[in-house]
Amino acid sequence: MVTLTALYKRPEDTAAFDDHYTNVHTPLVAKVPGLRKMEVSRFSKMLTPPNALISDQPYLECTMYFDNMDSFKAAMASEENKAAGKDLMSFAGPLVSMFVGVREDITL
Amino acid sequence: MVTLTALYKRPEDTAAFDDHYTNVHTPLVAKVPGLRKMEVSRFSKMLTPPNALISDQPYLECTMYFDNMDSFKAAMASEENKAAGKDLMSFAGPLVSMFVGVREDITL
Repeated sequence: MVTLTALYKRPEDTAAFDDHYTNVHTPLVAKVPGLRKMEVSRFSKMLTPPNALISDQPYLECTMYFDNMDSFKAAMASEENKAAGKDLMSFAGPLVSMFVGVREDITL
Repeated sequence: MVTLTALYKRPEDTAAFDDHYTNVHTPLVAKVPGLRKMEVSRFSKMLTPPNALISDQPYLECTMYFDNMDSFKAAMASEENKAAGKDLMSFAGPLVSMFVGVREDITL
């Protein structure tokens, strides 16, 4: 599936961030048309030293899943996504990095 | 679920990396006891500028899922994981960052 991944640097006030993320931001994202699944990771430990890509343990990651690139593009252009993006910038602008990708299950 | 997330910086030789990742590394990881699910994202676009956490678009992300922390710890201590870890360092030591976390589905 096509994914939008948001990776967050640890905020200074984690309690305020968590409250806004859970109670304001997530409900706005959930309204975005075409969003099929949303997963959130909260990281507790970094097993490797900082390297040329990453300077520190990220705080949180959210993966948002869409059926295909057309669905993703339509989602990005929606009013609901504009509202979620505006909210994101209001509380996490300097903290968040966003990546578009394709995600697949690996058969075990 | 408890997750181990591996985030890779873009390698210089992506074809050699892809070949080793798919044909050597993934089969080794798939043998780790207690591994319930494995997902791989390949990123195509970064929507945000570099920030204090991330200097560039990551190349690939793998999320490995375990039932709980006991299962994760047993997996990490297994011979199969030692073999996968040794292989990882052989082809991606300076490229990979690894994080332990808890991942949840968000109800839409």
